[in-house]
Amino acid sequence: MKFITGLLLFSSLTTFAQVKPSKGYVQYVNPFIGTGAVDKSSLSGSNFPGPTLPFGFLQLSPDTRETPEEPASGYDYNDKTICGFSHTHLSGTGVADLFDVLVLPTTGAVKNESRSAFSHDQESAKPGYYRVMLKDYGINVELTATSHVGLHRYTFPESNDAHIIFDLNHSLDKRRNYWSCKILDAQIRILDHKTIEGYRVLTGWASLRKVYFRAEFSKPFSTNILMGDNQQYPNLSIINGTNLKAILNFNTKGNEQVLVKVGLSPVSIANAGLNMRTELPGWDFEDIQSQAEKKWETELEKIKIEGTPLQKEIFYTGMYHAFIQPNNMADVNGDYMSTDFSVKNAADKTHYSTFSLWDTYRAAHPLYTLTQPERTAGMINSMIRQYDTYGYLPIWQLWGEENYCMIGNHAIPVIVDAALKGLKGFDLEKAYQAVKGSSVNDHQASPFTTWEKFGYIPEDIQSQSVSITLEMAYDDWCLAQFAKKMGKMDDYNHFLKRSEFYKNLYNPKTGFFQGKNADGKWLEPFNPISYGGNGGNPFTEGNGWQYFWYVPHNVNGLIDLVGGKQAFNAKLDQFFSLKNLPSEVNGNASGFIGQYAHGNEPSHHIAYLYDYAGAPWKTQFYVAKVLNELYNNSSSGYSGNEDCGQMSAWYIFSAMGFYPVNPANGIYAIGSPILSKATLGLENGKTFTVTAKNVSKSNVYIQSVKLNGKAYHKTYITQKDISAGSKLEFTMGPKPNKSWGIRSADQPPAI
Amino acid sequence: MKFITGLLLFSSLTTFAQVKPSKGYVQYVNPFIGTGAVDKSSLSGSNFPGPTLPFGFLQLSPDTRETPEEPASGYDYNDKTICGFSHTHLSGTGVADLFDVLVLPTTGAVKNESRSAFSHDQESAKPGYYRVMLKDYGINVELTATSHVGLHRYTFPESNDAHIIFDLNHSLDKRRNYWSCKILDAQIRILDHKTIEGYRVLTGWASLRKVYFRAEFSKPFSTNILMGDNQQYPNLSIINGTNLKAILNFNTKGNEQVLVKVGLSPVSIANAGLNMRTELPGWDFEDIQSQAEKKWETELEKIKIEGTPLQKEIFYTGMYHAFIQPNNMADVNGDYMSTDFSVKNAADKTHYSTFSLWDTYRAAHPLYTLTQPERTAGMINSMIRQYDTYGYLPIWQLWGEENYCMIGNHAIPVIVDAALKGLKGFDLEKAYQAVKGSSVNDHQASPFTTWEKFGYIPEDIQSQSVSITLEMAYDDWCLAQFAKKMGKMDDYNHFLKRSEFYKNLYNPKTGFFQGKNADGKWLEPFNPISYGGNGGNPFTEGNGWQYFWYVPHNVNGLIDLVGGKQAFNAKLDQFFSLKNLPSEVNGNASGFIGQYAHGNEPSHHIAYLYDYAGAPWKTQFYVAKVLNELYNNSSSGYSGNEDCGQMSAWYIFSAMGFYPVNPANGIYAIGSPILSKATLGLENGKTFTVTAKNVSKSNVYIQSVKLNGKAYHKTYITQKDISAGSKLEFTMGPKPNKSWGIRSADQPPAI
Repeated sequence: MKFITGLLLFSSLTTFAQVKPSKGYVQYVNPFIGTGAVDKSSLSGSNFPGPTLPFGFLQLSPDTRETPEEPASGYDYNDKTICGFSHTHLSGTGVADLFDVLVLPTTGAVKNESRSAFSHDQESAKPGYYRVMLKDYGINVELTATSHVGLHRYTFPESNDAHIIFDLNHSLDKRRNYWSCKILDAQIRILDHKTIEGYRVLTGWASLRKVYFRAEFSKPFSTNILMGDNQQYPNLSIINGTNLKAILNFNTKGNEQVLVKVGLSPVSIANAGLNMRTELPGWDFEDIQSQAEKKWETELEKIKIEGTPLQKEIFYTGMYHAFIQPNNMADVNGDYMSTDFSVKNAADKTHYSTFSLWDTYRAAHPLYTLTQPERTAGMINSMIRQYDTYGYLPIWQLWGEENYCMIGNHAIPVIVDAALKGLKGFDLEKAYQAVKGSSVNDHQASPFTTWEKFGYIPEDIQSQSVSITLEMAYDDWCLAQFAKKMGKMDDYNHFLKRSEFYKNLYNPKTGFFQGKNADGKWLEPFNPISYGGNGGNPFTEGNGWQYFWYVPHNVNGLIDLVGGKQAFNAKLDQFFSLKNLPSEVNGNASGFIGQYAHGNEPSHHIAYLYDYAGAPWKTQFYVAKVLNELYNNSSSGYSGNEDCGQMSAWYIFSAMGFYPVNPANGIYAIGSPILSKATLGLENGKTFTVTAKNVSKSNVYIQSVKLNGKAYHKTYITQKDISAGSKLEFTMGPKPNKSWGIRSADQPPAI
Repeated sequence: MKFITGLLLFSSLTTFAQVKPSKGYVQYVNPFIGTGAVDKSSLSGSNFPGPTLPFGFLQLSPDTRETPEEPASGYDYNDKTICGFSHTHLSGTGVADLFDVLVLPTTGAVKNESRSAFSHDQESAKPGYYRVMLKDYGINVELTATSHVGLHRYTFPESNDAHIIFDLNHSLDKRRNYWSCKILDAQIRILDHKTIEGYRVLTGWASLRKVYFRAEFSKPFSTNILMGDNQQYPNLSIINGTNLKAILNFNTKGNEQVLVKVGLSPVSIANAGLNMRTELPGWDFEDIQSQAEKKWETELEKIKIEGTPLQKEIFYTGMYHAFIQPNNMADVNGDYMSTDFSVKNAADKTHYSTFSLWDTYRAAHPLYTLTQPERTAGMINSMIRQYDTYGYLPIWQLWGEENYCMIGNHAIPVIVDAALKGLKGFDLEKAYQAVKGSSVNDHQASPFTTWEKFGYIPEDIQSQSVSITLEMAYDDWCLAQFAKKMGKMDDYNHFLKRSEFYKNLYNPKTGFFQGKNADGKWLEPFNPISYGGNGGNPFTEGNGWQYFWYVPHNVNGLIDLVGGKQAFNAKLDQFFSLKNLPSEVNGNASGFIGQYAHGNEPSHHIAYLYDYAGAPWKTQFYVAKVLNELYNNSSSGYSGNEDCGQMSAWYIFSAMGFYPVNPANGIYAIGSPILSKATLGLENGKTFTVTAKNVSKSNVYIQSVKLNGKAYHKTYITQKDISAGSKLEFTMGPKPNKSWGIRSADQPPAI
């Protein structure tokens, strides 16, 4: 692991040269964290540095590559040139898409593929703001945004040959057929010399996206050239085609500022204009930037922490990354494109999408449930809309559409978590029907009929069968709890039984979960070190070692399977120390401690499992190790893809000292708090406070705990403790207190 | 030419076995005309036999091929099996698309690709009705339709294993990547055992089509299987994917009828349901069939003719084919998908599409102007909507979208023809702006800047340059006349000048229009016999001989170019007799008389040009020859693609004795009437009557003419003559009367 090196190399990242210093918690956010590997052994988090609002529709950010695919954010901190600023980006995903409406200001002759060198010492970013000097053109670019509108401020040098180029062809690699990306049609129209409009309709990772835009300029362009298939049409007023650009020509004085605002809509040009008139009618860049900053501050101050500057930087950047998505895809009038590709209207003007659920159900959604209860209800209502039009809840929803990325049906734990915690704002019965429907209707990677017939997923019927079996069992447990709450005891019994199907793939001879075919025979040979990717192997982006631990709803059952706590602990010890990695490690696995791979989600709960087996100091050791060694403030600050907030949410919970091993049972296992204090403001007006006396990089072991002033021995807290506005006081030390939290009664209960 | 053979071979087509005989003019319609070649030397007109309403939204018809592409109608009379009945078809086009929601009833085991043998003696069709016996299954299929709803009546044998299969994967060949056809997403949902819904979203010849459907069954199916990628899911209630089928299972008694109605919408599932509830709430097959027949009768009786049974069959089938499209794409509530892919609403509930304008501006639209004035206004308003959202009028509009098929901007003559004839129902000024905008804004295949710069289209800048130059000059002439009407004399002069640009490609050395490059040099070598297709050659689907005649707005100017009438007539004589065809005749050229190729549109006006040069008896000879020899009532009744009504409209006009050589100047050249009488009912309540005394297959020469009882010597009539409700009386004979219509004053005027 060389993340510390990165930290040193990139400490300059924290200097926001030429940006007005921010007050409040936004000052700690460093949007460059996760934007690029620092050496061959590290990874980019696939984050982007440009401005966006919390859960906002667009993400205006520089793209450093013509066909931005790796990293999926479009920006690699190691790249030396920028090809423009496009308005939509994914944060932290493993697959790329979006990159709509690329805009680039230039001076001098226009080339077929314009781009400019830039350097990080002339680049800065903070929430709602990004700046860079385009060296080749001498143009200072500043960006800010509302939810649907990107605002660009370009400071030009004196030039008789200045341009602003709009590129509607910028996308995934169409020639290489990446995700079959293809632009089906596009349009650019010059309304007048201060206004252009247009759209593009394309297929890619999202089956169909219609992206409408309206752009307005603070200064009229003198002439324009529209380009179709690289052919230039001077002074044409409209162009249609699949490969379109507009070159808008200006004469500029030295230091002259030209502002451009670009409104987007997934529904119509009219809505793009309406979004702009509603959110950004004027031209006050500082005001928009300040509004954006305030919106971020409102979200960030929901958790007030005390800690080292580095901890604050990682923590608040983590909150920033966690709150970039899910994105509200509705226009300001509530119009949105439904999962069935028709246009519908949401009365509450919100329709959330970008659900990277296989990642985010683990900790990001529990974080939203705690800190964004109203938005969580909005997300659930949006998910239920997919159920209504599509027949099941989202698996991975992008731009309002299902793309079936990954496995499981992990909208279920999200909804059940909210339901069990009593979250308001959605219809419980409707939610129940959606959860149940999504657990019985066969669909891609979820063959429930097969599930019920075999009691496991046979690999010869559906690949990734061990991972699906384990994760499906968990989703079933969630549904069973929801059924119980709703008084539907037949359903409870049925799905609780299904939640135990994981046992059917446990091979006592090897001590691992293993794949079986429909004939009931184990797949041989089995090697728990061998990796699977996204098909063709029983394991998903991981190996037998990593998936062994995935019974979050019945850790005690898992402990029993291996023969008790001692064996379980020994197995955990082996897991965290077994270093040999096969040559075919899946690209998604990284951030290793033994077989533990913090860079991908299957490992995220595992360090907390010692809590369940009487060795909480080991949980403390490994959690602190991950917090301190696998997160940093460099461009490679995450040990793998940030994954739409999940990597950040792990840090946020763990740094406060607890983590939702089972994301839907309202129980948080206690780890190792590394912040001296964290205060969580709750919707009910109360605050939940965690303090960690004597905490330091070496004092990672819990010596004692008080809850509301009373000695506390349990290795977990509950949602009730948090909601009550409790005070949780840790005292930390350099050596384990092996008498704390070790009795069976101290351990997280089996529900 | 072997069309006579076809006529004899397929005379049985006229027998509608087992169909209730129809009265009125519908009885003459034979929907099998144009549905298949009769031997290697003939062609299919690419027509389909299934039911549709006049200008209706859907076309329910059998498909004889899995990937129906050639013929584009999906049905080839020579095929022996049917794979199902899909709900949308193009009539007579050279390129295929649509084929949405294929339905097939079967008995016995379901195969992966079900299909049944059929024979023509157990098949029949008439307007609004189609019937076939599926021999493999013993199922009698009857089809009828409203505008948005297809109604199927299946008479099953006794079976415990009867099925109705819905196939959403049926389309152009996706593996062969024909027109890049790809299904982006699809859905089938079982609402209950009498109702299913779904959609498919796909790209093909139309960039993007969203096809939503709702289907209801008169009898509940007992069980169902949904299929995704050929995998079966028994009793699943919803499936999403790209390759979907539904198998609905029934037990049937002998001769039990099961009815299925399928409503479509290009906007939403809700609208598909609304369309069905509005148009076809019940189950009365005979009533729906009778309504369809009445709607057709209303259209057909607009021209009442007397003639031989064969003439009536060809004539009324021609009217039927001409009135299948353009199609009203709006849902019953007026919602439609706009050219920019957003959903809009038409207050008058009509939005026409399927504009095969390169074909249909010649005679089909003039026929609509005469017989469908209200719908013509609707078509023009729909075209103007494309101008509003897309920047120029349609070139080839399919499913509401531009696909840029062919050349020119031939919405212009359509609109100008209507404007000059004083048609009501559209905004003249708006129409003028649309026509002018579509004549100055460069777009694909229409580089107007180049046009104005060079005075011709250079082949090295835009291929098909001679054809584009000639056709663009004509469109410019139309615009000039519109400008004059609107009092915009600057525009008039400008575009009139452009309309003479055709002269710049006339090479006096060869006596042909020839391609030039931008350097002004003739492209060499030149051979007027050599064919071009759709690019890479100066000529479009034709050769120098065929395009020589394309100056419909200034035939006198063309006569002058070649040195007078004598030379012009000699050149026409050579054209109609020069038989040598090169090996590379473009597939679109067929129906030859010398170099004249009636099977494709560039030749359509040429036989009438003798009228302009003092030899009208030669017009009479060739027009009669084409009418009598190149049309018949076989499945190969047209000498090429029927082309959305154009081949039929040529017959309809010519059989009555006149034809719009210039489709926008209100002047019809007189040919050779072959009908003893034709009465055209006009919107103003008047009737225009044409009689042809002594007419017969051998009496094709005009002996004398009277207009309203007075001797008439002109070789043309005007729109005013028609609108006034005139009587035009021909007397025909076996030999030319070479003294009729030969003075300069008799000849169609240059405007």
